[in-house]
Amino acid sequence: MLPQFRVPLDEATIVQENDLRGTVVPIFEKMGVSREDAEMAADVLVVADLRGVDTHGVSNMLRSYVSGYQGGQINPRPNWRIVRETPSTANIDSDRGLGVIIAPKAMEVAIQKARQVGIGMVTIGNGRHLGMASYHAMMALEHDMIGTCMTSCPPSVLPTFGAEPVLGTNPIAVAVPARNEPPFVFDAATSTVAANKMGIARRLGVMMEAGWMADSEGNPVMEEVDPAMREAEGYQLLPLGSTRELGSHKGYGLSCVVDILAGVLTGVGYGAVPGRPNFGHYVAAYSIDAFTDVDSFKDMMDEWLLMMKNAKPAPGHDRVLVAGQPEAEVEAVRRADGIPFHSEVVDWMRDTCGELGVECLV
Amino acid sequence: MLPQFRVPLDEATIVQENDLRGTVVPIFEKMGVSREDAEMAADVLVVADLRGVDTHGVSNMLRSYVSGYQGGQINPRPNWRIVRETPSTANIDSDRGLGVIIAPKAMEVAIQKARQVGIGMVTIGNGRHLGMASYHAMMALEHDMIGTCMTSCPPSVLPTFGAEPVLGTNPIAVAVPARNEPPFVFDAATSTVAANKMGIARRLGVMMEAGWMADSEGNPVMEEVDPAMREAEGYQLLPLGSTRELGSHKGYGLSCVVDILAGVLTGVGYGAVPGRPNFGHYVAAYSIDAFTDVDSFKDMMDEWLLMMKNAKPAPGHDRVLVAGQPEAEVEAVRRADGIPFHSEVVDWMRDTCGELGVECLV
Repeated sequence: MLPQFRVPLDEATIVQENDLRGTVVPIFEKMGVSREDAEMAADVLVVADLRGVDTHGVSNMLRSYVSGYQGGQINPRPNWRIVRETPSTANIDSDRGLGVIIAPKAMEVAIQKARQVGIGMVTIGNGRHLGMASYHAMMALEHDMIGTCMTSCPPSVLPTFGAEPVLGTNPIAVAVPARNEPPFVFDAATSTVAANKMGIARRLGVMMEAGWMADSEGNPVMEEVDPAMREAEGYQLLPLGSTRELGSHKGYGLSCVVDILAGVLTGVGYGAVPGRPNFGHYVAAYSIDAFTDVDSFKDMMDEWLLMMKNAKPAPGHDRVLVAGQPEAEVEAVRRADGIPFHSEVVDWMRDTCGELGVECLV
Repeated sequence: MLPQFRVPLDEATIVQENDLRGTVVPIFEKMGVSREDAEMAADVLVVADLRGVDTHGVSNMLRSYVSGYQGGQINPRPNWRIVRETPSTANIDSDRGLGVIIAPKAMEVAIQKARQVGIGMVTIGNGRHLGMASYHAMMALEHDMIGTCMTSCPPSVLPTFGAEPVLGTNPIAVAVPARNEPPFVFDAATSTVAANKMGIARRLGVMMEAGWMADSEGNPVMEEVDPAMREAEGYQLLPLGSTRELGSHKGYGLSCVVDILAGVLTGVGYGAVPGRPNFGHYVAAYSIDAFTDVDSFKDMMDEWLLMMKNAKPAPGHDRVLVAGQPEAEVEAVRRADGIPFHSEVVDWMRDTCGELGVECLV
């Protein structure tokens, strides 16, 4: 994450992991979620906070989930079921269950299928917000598998040359195990930035970078933009690449791929369809042993990861990073020292616990 | 393709599809390739030219293949074989065979597996240049499957914050069938541009766009660059996103995913490993019927494609395009009217035919 999107420590309250879990689980239970599912949801959110993915942690997402449960858009007791399957695939109707809770169950199905036939690929229709996509992809790691996850989101991103949003931020996550190095974990929106970053930008009073947004007519704005311009003036997010010349048709095309695999392929619908549930998910697990020797693979991954980390840096940079490395470094610090939360978020949590009659440990 | 990368018609020789095939097939045969494989190779190259993917057609690639066969880097009679497989996966050792010829055979294996168990995913190690990735992905379409293809290439692209190239241009292709609309066909390098575009830029005397390259120290150059600066001054390609602020860590991360799935997972090696074969490929087929009803899927794809095409355009643009649409439009014109080749390419073909004792029909 760019440095300006981190909570400055002088505005932060430090929250310990266990206190956070102990507060979040009963909040989900108050929403009608079972204890087991509440613990699952809390884990997905807390791991995001621990890994520095503040956009998808408790701090940035819990209030929208609480509001979704309270407003009836999210079903706390979904009767999720597999509606079609083959030895390597399944399609799940998640019955409006939160993706944060259903996607791990789908990933378990994918892992089981990969163990049996090499690959498991599962789509999830009729879904709600996924949480951090890489959480689900990373579930494959301990099984010596490569995990992937994608989600088709409601529209907020313009197509190249377009003036109206028809695509979501549609992230792609891929997790790959190594031997001694932290795993490779890629997780990124196919837009210039995750939509959730705008909430953080507003909270922190920072600007959106040049090339992240288009004005209300669809012209890419190649200077800094106040995130409030989205609501005030109808500014929209651009696909990765920002402009056609810089390659935005590639970010746009990748976003389309996600909308198809995680949306159309569920049979329920894609991100922009009005009147239909607007989140579809996709998880997959690939057994490494189905392709090559697992030990050799992990050794080669270490060699490959070290090649990236040891690549000569450009002027002004002290090192080259590889996906999953910054998150692993942040996680080590936050597990030991706690997670910095913006005071405004802590206030919301305390208020919410008070309203729900839940003990607030943060 | 940006307009400046098209051959201007006043510098072009128009070549008919059948004349091109009739010239290319015997050239491959002269390299020692079997008739059947030569026809396969010619089809992959000619389809690229027909679809306007000039970077990967006869005009831009054949001379490098001829040189590779003549120099012994490409094996004209490879003893390719499956070295490991499961019901949904296979790993192929391609014995230095040209990817243009081996990847379609691998895709046939993937399609067969997808028919049986839902998904087929095949890696190809010890390979040579792939040709147009979307050709192989599109093979899935007539089977009512989604096709994907990726290739791990020799290094030419910097990682974000880096000063030395450790990744190839590592393209991703995805093809999805529709009912009445042309299929969705995405095919793009994960770098700002395909490396082959530099050859075209030099031939046409046009500049590389701002944000496509970094200088010899690794600083992204945010102004136009002469493509000759790559050899003259050690300029390098940037990952999609160009700079960290614009999101180059996403293009870099996606390139890593390709290098892992199409490189490390083959067991043979990734793009940058010195002394190892430097091309690995990945193809996969997903049976739509394994997830949802095929007819409903195709109807929804038409609806989705029309939503994209009918999205309101931004000022200065007359329409929004969707991946596969420009290529389908160019293909319709070129099948009828022929393919514009740069005169310099036609001269090379005539010279080469003369040297090889092959009748030149172009």
